[in-house]
Amino acid sequence: MVLLTRKAEFSAAHYYWNAAWSAEENARFFGKCANRNGHGHNYTLEVTVAGEVDPVTGFVVDLKELKDILEREVVSVYDHRHLNLEVPEFASRIPTTENIAVAIWDRLNGKVPSASLFRVRVYELPDLFADYYGEQA
Amino acid sequence: MVLLTRKAEFSAAHYYWNAAWSAEENARFFGKCANRNGHGHNYTLEVTVAGEVDPVTGFVVDLKELKDILEREVVSVYDHRHLNLEVPEFASRIPTTENIAVAIWDRLNGKVPSASLFRVRVYELPDLFADYYGEQA
Amino acid sequence: MVLLTRKAEFSAAHYYWNAAWSAEENARFFGKCANRNGHGHNYTLEVTVAGEVDPVTGFVVDLKELKDILEREVVSVYDHRHLNLEVPEFASRIPTTENIAVAIWDRLNGKVPSASLFRVRVYELPDLFADYYGEQA
Amino acid sequence: MVLLTRKAEFSAAHYYWNAAWSAEENARFFGKCANRNGHGHNYTLEVTVAGEVDPVTGFVVDLKELKDILEREVVSVYDHRHLNLEVPEFASRIPTTENIAVAIWDRLNGKVPSASLFRVRVYELPDLFADYYGEQA
Amino acid sequence: MVLLTRKAEFSAAHYYWNAAWSAEENARFFGKCANRNGHGHNYTLEVTVAGEVDPVTGFVVDLKELKDILEREVVSVYDHRHLNLEVPEFASRIPTTENIAVAIWDRLNGKVPSASLFRVRVYELPDLFADYYGEQA
Amino acid sequence: MVLLTRKAEFSAAHYYWNAAWSAEENARFFGKCANRNGHGHNYTLEVTVAGEVDPVTGFVVDLKELKDILEREVVSVYDHRHLNLEVPEFASRIPTTENIAVAIWDRLNGKVPSASLFRVRVYELPDLFADYYGEQA
Repeated sequence: MVLLTRKAEFSAAHYYWNAAWSAEENARFFGKCANRNGHGHNYTLEVTVAGEVDPVTGFVVDLKELKDILEREVVSVYDHRHLNLEVPEFASRIPTTENIAVAIWDRLNGKVPSASLFRVRVYELPDLFADYYGEQA
Repeated sequence: MVLLTRKAEFSAAHYYWNAAWSAEENARFFGKCANRNGHGHNYTLEVTVAGEVDPVTGFVVDLKELKDILEREVVSVYDHRHLNLEVPEFASRIPTTENIAVAIWDRLNGKVPSASLFRVRVYELPDLFADYYGEQA
Repeated sequence: MVLLTRKAEFSAAHYYWNAAWSAEENARFFGKCANRNGHGHNYTLEVTVAGEVDPVTGFVVDLKELKDILEREVVSVYDHRHLNLEVPEFASRIPTTENIAVAIWDRLNGKVPSASLFRVRVYELPDLFADYYGEQA
Repeated sequence: MVLLTRKAEFSAAHYYWNAAWSAEENARFFGKCANRNGHGHNYTLEVTVAGEVDPVTGFVVDLKELKDILEREVVSVYDHRHLNLEVPEFASRIPTTENIAVAIWDRLNGKVPSASLFRVRVYELPDLFADYYGEQA
Repeated sequence: MVLLTRKAEFSAAHYYWNAAWSAEENARFFGKCANRNGHGHNYTLEVTVAGEVDPVTGFVVDLKELKDILEREVVSVYDHRHLNLEVPEFASRIPTTENIAVAIWDRLNGKVPSASLFRVRVYELPDLFADYYGEQA
Repeated sequence: MVLLTRKAEFSAAHYYWNAAWSAEENARFFGKCANRNGHGHNYTLEVTVAGEVDPVTGFVVDLKELKDILEREVVSVYDHRHLNLEVPEFASRIPTTENIAVAIWDRLNGKVPSASLFRVRVYELPDLFADYYGEQA
């Protein structure tokens, strides 16, 4: 089994806000991330799939196909968007790095033919990232 | 003369919109950047100052002082903010990479003691940046 | 379970020296690292914690709290220090990349509330790093 | 147990071509990678070994020795070479990132004294890499 | 005046060979780069244009247009190609980093509307690059 | 004229101390950099030379020769050394980033055949660097 990882980028706005809390509670807990005007990031996504190397092609996965799946399922939905306001899964979940990693896993899982999804890594900043390996991890 | 460069980062939201144009014109010219919900970036700022090396300290500029100036004049104003809605100079100018570089120059010019501002570089993405050297350049 | 990783940096001096060996043996085995005047590095530290995502906050760990713990337990002790001469654990252990990773694990383990320490990675150079997962790994 | 990782680089040419297919099939499946004139990459190799830290030296592995092994077994054979035409294992296997990772594992496995080979990672581009952990993974 | 820089990448094969020299002279002077099977690199291109910021758009140059020009004039011609065998300007000039920078300048100069070409930078490796500013520099 | 830049690295220890000042003055001005036990950095050096492209070789400078000069004049003298204690020019000058850039210029100037030294850039940290262009700049 070989793991293959491909990176992609998206730029998006977000804020941290728990609707069950007062404005004061949100500001105290989330600090400057609670600013309702939003701020944003260049997110870097690393998607890892696992599988056997096909002896005919030398591929675990067809990279053009993987790139198309990432574009269709994630980048076209998240890039140049306000995550809280425009991406359905963040209407009820705060778009933290952790929740974004889980959401992207849910978007991709089962969509990659011939290989299984192994890990989703999301960088919010170059010095901060979250990894999700699915339920079994 | 030696040039000294220090980097800083800020994460902000923005959109591109010319209020004199219709929504259709903005969408046609600015594409997905015209989304009024905003999107965002991790901006990297490189500030270069020029001066003689002080033979007593070995410094062109006191780095703690330079860091404080960048924090006070730029980072505390731009970081975790929506540039169009919360930063005064972008009420009337579109916060493109080019305009952000000029605005940061105007915020810093004349504020660094003992050295002169030489260049402001702003990265909006790792593969896109603008440089401004002031009026004389 | 989601893994969250945060990076930190520290700049320190060190040398490699086994007190049970002669100067010749140290020089032969450790080469230029055995220079007793010391040399130094910009170390990059990646600390990974594992836990469930809190549905109220979207966090595995409060990042401000994690940053404070890293600062208090590691960076304030190691940064701008000579590891052999000023950091207690390296009085009796050589501060190799491997030993630094284990020492930082021991400093952090049990200190992060709500999440468990999963991995400590230490880069001594961009092309050299050590990973430690604790005793169980 | 501690893991130690060292990076190395090599620059090589390659193409993707299945000799059992027609030129049309190769072009359709491999796209521009099927160009028989070849193209090339700066490959980055990360080799991870696992072992106990020697209490006398503080090392899992002697880094000079590891560097020599990487140079002798991999870099001197792959660097500034055409992988399809000059490296024996790619006479019969297509030099995809996946197959290069497996081939480097086979070249290194059993060659590092005192530590066991844990992982081989090969970057073909900064946003594309393959990991191989050997048969057991 | 503001400078705007955009990066692009291409992966290509090449070799160094002076047809007026014997094989021995080529090998002696160019070393392993003289291997006629070719080797290759991931080249990174930075193109800098200079101009006034348009007060209506905030742009020195329309980035979509600049990206299209780089794709059409350079990337589509160089990427996944053997520079010596498939790119006309290298039939008679050795594709060194220096000559590639000059050749890309010649391909782009005069093609960018509203801004002037200021600098072409080409990285052959992360630690090696050439800059060309045109004839006047 | 084309500019060619090559990077090199060295790891060294240093401290900031003005012998004409009291310990209190040094601590007040230089902060934690005044620690006499020393601390250290991975320095990155970028050396830029300028010249005409030789039509016979395609080179501004022979890269093997440039690499040998950097190794002999700088890296072998600075790497794995304590700059204050072991490098002559820092017996009387504080090894700040600015002074290191000037010292490396003085070591290299006039040593590169066929090309002229154009710029020396020294990174002390990834977010801090100094540039020196010689007296004329």
